[in-house]
Amino acid sequence: MDYETPQFFRVMRYAREADRDVVDMVSGNPDWDPPSALREGLKAYADSPTEAFQYPPSVGLRDLREEIATRRGVATGQVLVTNGAGEANHLAMAAGLEAFPGAEVLLVDPVYPYYPGRASLLGADVSFVPTEVDGQLDAEAVRECASAETAVIVVNTPNNPLGTTYDETTMAALVDVAEARDALLVSDEVYDHFDYGGRFSSALAVDSPNRVVTNSFSKSMAITGWRVGYAVFPPRDGPSGDLFDRARTRHMLTTVTGSRPAQAAVLAALRETGPGYYERNRERLRERIEVFTAALDAAGAEFTRPDGGFYVMARFPDFAGSMENVERLVDEAGVAGMPGAAFGDSRADWLRFALVTPRVATAAERLADYFE
Amino acid sequence: MDYETPQFFRVMRYAREADRDVVDMVSGNPDWDPPSALREGLKAYADSPTEAFQYPPSVGLRDLREEIATRRGVATGQVLVTNGAGEANHLAMAAGLEAFPGAEVLLVDPVYPYYPGRASLLGADVSFVPTEVDGQLDAEAVRECASAETAVIVVNTPNNPLGTTYDETTMAALVDVAEARDALLVSDEVYDHFDYGGRFSSALAVDSPNRVVTNSFSKSMAITGWRVGYAVFPPRDGPSGDLFDRARTRHMLTTVTGSRPAQAAVLAALRETGPGYYERNRERLRERIEVFTAALDAAGAEFTRPDGGFYVMARFPDFAGSMENVERLVDEAGVAGMPGAAFGDSRADWLRFALVTPRVATAAERLADYFE
Repeated sequence: MDYETPQFFRVMRYAREADRDVVDMVSGNPDWDPPSALREGLKAYADSPTEAFQYPPSVGLRDLREEIATRRGVATGQVLVTNGAGEANHLAMAAGLEAFPGAEVLLVDPVYPYYPGRASLLGADVSFVPTEVDGQLDAEAVRECASAETAVIVVNTPNNPLGTTYDETTMAALVDVAEARDALLVSDEVYDHFDYGGRFSSALAVDSPNRVVTNSFSKSMAITGWRVGYAVFPPRDGPSGDLFDRARTRHMLTTVTGSRPAQAAVLAALRETGPGYYERNRERLRERIEVFTAALDAAGAEFTRPDGGFYVMARFPDFAGSMENVERLVDEAGVAGMPGAAFGDSRADWLRFALVTPRVATAAERLADYFE
Repeated sequence: MDYETPQFFRVMRYAREADRDVVDMVSGNPDWDPPSALREGLKAYADSPTEAFQYPPSVGLRDLREEIATRRGVATGQVLVTNGAGEANHLAMAAGLEAFPGAEVLLVDPVYPYYPGRASLLGADVSFVPTEVDGQLDAEAVRECASAETAVIVVNTPNNPLGTTYDETTMAALVDVAEARDALLVSDEVYDHFDYGGRFSSALAVDSPNRVVTNSFSKSMAITGWRVGYAVFPPRDGPSGDLFDRARTRHMLTTVTGSRPAQAAVLAALRETGPGYYERNRERLRERIEVFTAALDAAGAEFTRPDGGFYVMARFPDFAGSMENVERLVDEAGVAGMPGAAFGDSRADWLRFALVTPRVATAAERLADYFE
């Protein structure tokens, strides 16, 4: 996989330069508004005294860490605020590779392409466990693929690109695999506010020194460009208490700390935004999933119905998920998706569509017409 | 040097918990206001449509890169916007270690303690060149210390902790050393707006594929917590064109991109802030330097008169720059500085004072009284 010049950019450019109207279903940028308290929080911060514009603690604003800790039911000292979930995943992987034996990062195929990129940057070997046909992850398959060489296992639930969520039993079994293999489970849960079936279960539900949970406000507050994320590490006085310190040191020496205006506004939004905001966003996506999967049915496509997240993967009859076909779909149907090969080998015949556009219904119609 | 739990924090805590009033001359946080256009820019951004809240390009907002490129007289493609100069230095060092032969990072002693920390994180060997007695850097001494093993040379002008600036001849000679040793010169110029004698010269003045300049708006706009910095790499179609790509890849895989609210507000402030803002801040510091160095004279201290930056290093008679003496000065004089040993071996007998407090005159009086 070529993670250095992500194929995202290539497809987005092709769609932008197309000679016709194209519905962009490539990027994962939410198209709805952030909480209004976030905008107000940023304005209030802009009027702060100059002290509030200087370095926050490297690990993040104290009040923000406390707010996150309370919501997640962990100690404040376990929470490291990062430059988005991207940095949280990088730090968690790096800490796991340092602290646990072995040099391998075990990933799930299909995979969010940044994970293998990050593992390679850190000099790790990368292996993949394929998902089941229905997109679910079989913890026993992970157990078989993991070895003494495995230092880190990374999962993403709700999942990008599949839209699957892992239930409590699966998460507990994954933590158990990490413990049995003396490895670290990194559970990236950035889509946790987009759980449609109530099936999602955070890895935090299982107490263990062998798991780190990463998250961010990029998707839940529709602010992918603000870069406020966090990682929850095992308690610092426990068996893996060094993980937090390792991550904090790397964070300090690479980025020093995260941007304070964004942290301050996210804190205000966390405090003042009720559950209605998140429920409205879920409801909007539920409707889009209905419309889009109905069109996939009409087009005779094979697909996994998402029970979480923003994405649908689908395979159309006699239409491989290649870059050539992605470009053909842009030109001939006016819909831009991502080639499955961008997410690994196992779904190279599939295409991924992101449902974060108000024009999902238009795209659905176009696809149904094109393949009918 | 113990860079993992910086001594800054230890001294600041000691001063905070002291039983008496203490002037904090430890941290490098500006105590003056940011440009008013920065506050206004942040408020205007808060009212942007949701698209403006999503991922900016990984390399930074296009308009911000262009504005920086125009001001620095380089191509936009050479500018990588980073999470502060901290990340810019990390990326430049990492790219230099990858692209140039050798595994050594050569630093100047006294040193900003994050540099050796970053070099160690990247697995590099660290060596030091001492400055001259007057705090200046002799490029010929750098030439002698550099070897075939040297991949990266890092300098900081205007200098933290010494307050010295390097002139055009020195900078040209440093670039020449980098070329002769097949190494990369990283010139960290975050204090470039605080040049009091007109002596400062950016490494950008010398065209070379062997130098990268790093900078940020943390000090010039009094926003250390906003994390907007940049690095200027050699042209991408030239001999070291790969440096930009290496840094971009690492940036993408570690932090994805910098925070957009801060980038947008900095862009507005860059466009709308005239030279008067920067000149007022320089004038304020010139006055503080006068008052403080007069007190150092009265106290019989040896010191380097700063011609740039925020800091003064001084050695008091029979008063070593140890942590014990720093704590004694807090308790007995009510002034908190940093022990010289935090900045390396060569000035372990000295103390460093930061002039970013409105109470410089009070601190000056207290020191003069204490040592008289």
